Amino acid sequence: MKESDIGLIGLAVMGENLALNMESKGFCVSLYNRPHPKEEAVVDKFLEGRGKGKNFKGTHTIEELVKSVKRPRRIMMMVKAGAPVDELIEQLLPYLEPGDVLIDGGNSDFHDTERRVEELAKHNIYFVGTGISGGEEGALHGPSIMPGGAPEAWPLVKDVLQSIAAKLDDGTPCCAWIGSGGAGHFVKMVHNGIEYGDMQLIAEAYSLLKQTENSGNEELAAVFREWGKGDLNSYLIDITADILDFKDENGHYLLDSILDVAGQKGTGKWSVEAALDQGAPLTLITEAVFARFLSSLLSERKKASRIYRDSPVLAQLYMSGGRDAIKDALYASKLISYTQGFSLMKEASDFYKWDLDYGVIAKIWRKGCIIRSVFLTKITEAYAKEPLLENLLFDSFFSNKIQEALPSWRSVVADGALNGIPLPCMSSALSYFDGLSTLHSSANLIQAQRDYFGAHTYERKDAERGEFFHTDWTGKGGNTVSGSYNA
Amino acid sequence: MKESDIGLIGLAVMGENLALNMESKGFCVSLYNRPHPKEEAVVDKFLEGRGKGKNFKGTHTIEELVKSVKRPRRIMMMVKAGAPVDELIEQLLPYLEPGDVLIDGGNSDFHDTERRVEELAKHNIYFVGTGISGGEEGALHGPSIMPGGAPEAWPLVKDVLQSIAAKLDDGTPCCAWIGSGGAGHFVKMVHNGIEYGDMQLIAEAYSLLKQTENSGNEELAAVFREWGKGDLNSYLIDITADILDFKDENGHYLLDSILDVAGQKGTGKWSVEAALDQGAPLTLITEAVFARFLSSLLSERKKASRIYRDSPVLAQLYMSGGRDAIKDALYASKLISYTQGFSLMKEASDFYKWDLDYGVIAKIWRKGCIIRSVFLTKITEAYAKEPLLENLLFDSFFSNKIQEALPSWRSVVADGALNGIPLPCMSSALSYFDGLSTLHSSANLIQAQRDYFGAHTYERKDAERGEFFHTDWTGKGGNTVSGSYNA
Repeated sequence: MKESDIGLIGLAVMGENLALNMESKGFCVSLYNRPHPKEEAVVDKFLEGRGKGKNFKGTHTIEELVKSVKRPRRIMMMVKAGAPVDELIEQLLPYLEPGDVLIDGGNSDFHDTERRVEELAKHNIYFVGTGISGGEEGALHGPSIMPGGAPEAWPLVKDVLQSIAAKLDDGTPCCAWIGSGGAGHFVKMVHNGIEYGDMQLIAEAYSLLKQTENSGNEELAAVFREWGKGDLNSYLIDITADILDFKDENGHYLLDSILDVAGQKGTGKWSVEAALDQGAPLTLITEAVFARFLSSLLSERKKASRIYRDSPVLAQLYMSGGRDAIKDALYASKLISYTQGFSLMKEASDFYKWDLDYGVIAKIWRKGCIIRSVFLTKITEAYAKEPLLENLLFDSFFSNKIQEALPSWRSVVADGALNGIPLPCMSSALSYFDGLSTLHSSANLIQAQRDYFGAHTYERKDAERGEFFHTDWTGKGGNTVSGSYNA
Repeated sequence: MKESDIGLIGLAVMGENLALNMESKGFCVSLYNRPHPKEEAVVDKFLEGRGKGKNFKGTHTIEELVKSVKRPRRIMMMVKAGAPVDELIEQLLPYLEPGDVLIDGGNSDFHDTERRVEELAKHNIYFVGTGISGGEEGALHGPSIMPGGAPEAWPLVKDVLQSIAAKLDDGTPCCAWIGSGGAGHFVKMVHNGIEYGDMQLIAEAYSLLKQTENSGNEELAAVFREWGKGDLNSYLIDITADILDFKDENGHYLLDSILDVAGQKGTGKWSVEAALDQGAPLTLITEAVFARFLSSLLSERKKASRIYRDSPVLAQLYMSGGRDAIKDALYASKLISYTQGFSLMKEASDFYKWDLDYGVIAKIWRKGCIIRSVFLTKITEAYAKEPLLENLLFDSFFSNKIQEALPSWRSVVADGALNGIPLPCMSSALSYFDGLSTLHSSANLIQAQRDYFGAHTYERKDAERGEFFHTDWTGKGGNTVSGSYNA
């Protein structure tokens, strides 16, 4: 019996679609799914359904799966992130042989991936943790794929992963080697964080349009379709337009019946944690994550809206910039979000020694994934011009765009504040921009306070960096540096 | 030889001052410090210096320390948080006996404290993790103390801890039992997070005053002194006034020479991580932490300020509310910060089953600690009226204050946006307020997007909570729920 080209474990929707994608590119795929508690024979069902008549090999034990794949084996796991991945690795290990490649295609925590790459290296198994973005559709027709881990694995998995990936117009696959260890899952995590930001920004623009233009869903859909033709061209803008005028079977706009409580599954949160670890100000994505938390406090929101219903707002519309101003604010804020995300990747790359190629990352996000957009090209170009660019806002394309959008952006954020329209991401983006471009900030006061109450010391503008001073502000304190008090 | 009342390990500035505080309250304190790599005989030096002629017992080994304290022993550790605490516990264990109490007075991660309480319980040692706030001065003259851990320990340590704590005007000590496990260190962590927020808010007010009033340091100091007499009465406002007109030996305002790069030591970051774990929107403290990160990017800030120096600002001053408006914005934002902090504690208390008493927590923060202020009384009163208050903004005192301040708050945030003055915390506080009091938010769009690209399902406004729907938006997708794609 002919051996398969690759094995795939886990036939939830993503696994199923990836398997179909691989098969359609000419690969014979062995399939395995753990015995399902409720549903019998997941693999058999798939082979009688969507997989019927195709080049799949159904297997019913881990051993059977492993033995059905040609060596060096490539086995992709599409199971729930966390403990299930470790359990599956445990089950696989007795059957794997040196030189085999194990690929984790789930949304694993990059710390876990770092660890697994190391652990499996001891068995001479090459472990790959790969981000896959694109949802159901992407998995089936071509996702964006971000593999990282044991570098020895790349030549062995490149053909499969690049063939199933989305392709740019020039044929470039949206899949490139990201780096060692957990680099692939880290970059996917940042991708998802950026996705949180993009979605919240679009929701803020939707709020603004709805409230300042008093428009109906058809008109709003038309605005987003228009925006989707220009600088903002992106998948998320496109589907927003589709969602806005989508009618249910009763002819009602479905969006208006959907409860405004946004769920989340962890990778946005992880991005924030990574930013905290790296000391990177990832304000926009963080506000997007918190906005979802806030949306879920439905009973508190109901009560607050009753108490504060008649709270004063100051203006119906301050600047009257209308939809063009909102578009500018959305665009500028989006630039800030990507700036923060790429800065986070730079900090992490330096810290973990991943040597990330930011231009390549932007390029493979151009198609297939949820955040695909025209403007990612501009990020690729920025890093092509200056591979070690410190901050995207220093690139001339970005700085021109920001300057152009700035008056509208300022007025829209002011509008939100004056009219009681919450714009956590647009306003946090503006604070970041103004904070970054403020030469003399008020952080000197914070340092003075810390030295006053905790003897934390400070640096001086007229001294070298790294020289620390302490002042006995009250004439009563000690003059040693605090050892255990932290603030 | 008479045995001591308590042992204290670690004579950095906080430990030294706590020891002096204890001794001054009539306790005989045994002291130990690990052999110092550079400085010889830390304990002996202290006993010849600040400790001279006082009721201390110097010891030079762990064994000597433990044996010098009367049983059941009380031994307080004032060492660097993290591994040093575990190492010290290891060293102490052979000498401790069942019923002894070990107190960690450092800024430990509450997860570590949870673990240590459990581990030491196996040896019948009662472990207490206590937050201590007040800096050097507080440690010496009366800090705010937040003990938690093994409940059996409380009757054994209550006399010492309450006697060294700060006292309210009616004599109530600023020290109360917080709860089991890591509750004490959790509450201290939130205290520190709130401190980050308070400091950043004051820095934003300072920025606004400086730029909109064009005032000099003497005048600014006078404004803060004035504010310190009213609703904003607090330690941090007081020291801000002192800092503003503090002159160095050359007669120059010291503040103006201090580099605007703010350091941080971790507990602010921990608060954010805890908020992420609890799904609590702790936006203001988070922005304060990120503002410190941003301040430290000095070379990026310099470059950005050159590129964007001539960026358009839209108004010199929109509302001209002046210093009173700034005061209102500061006050309202501070209310939001405490609201968010107390909501986080409520989530954690429910999750960890600590049964926190929020009124008591506010009360023991009234004196001794860095965030001490008049308005904490109002929080105590709010919880006295309604111990299970869902959100502080539902209390009538708070809601009246917010309503009063709202027009000024809105105009100040708009001023910041229009004039390029970064107000990350004031504006994020306003976004939270507007988000919380918005009955119909745009999160329905986010849910629709998630269902569109990832089959994440949504709830409906016209259905029961917990009933989930999926729509095949494109007519092409599957109708199962995504298993491994997370966004």
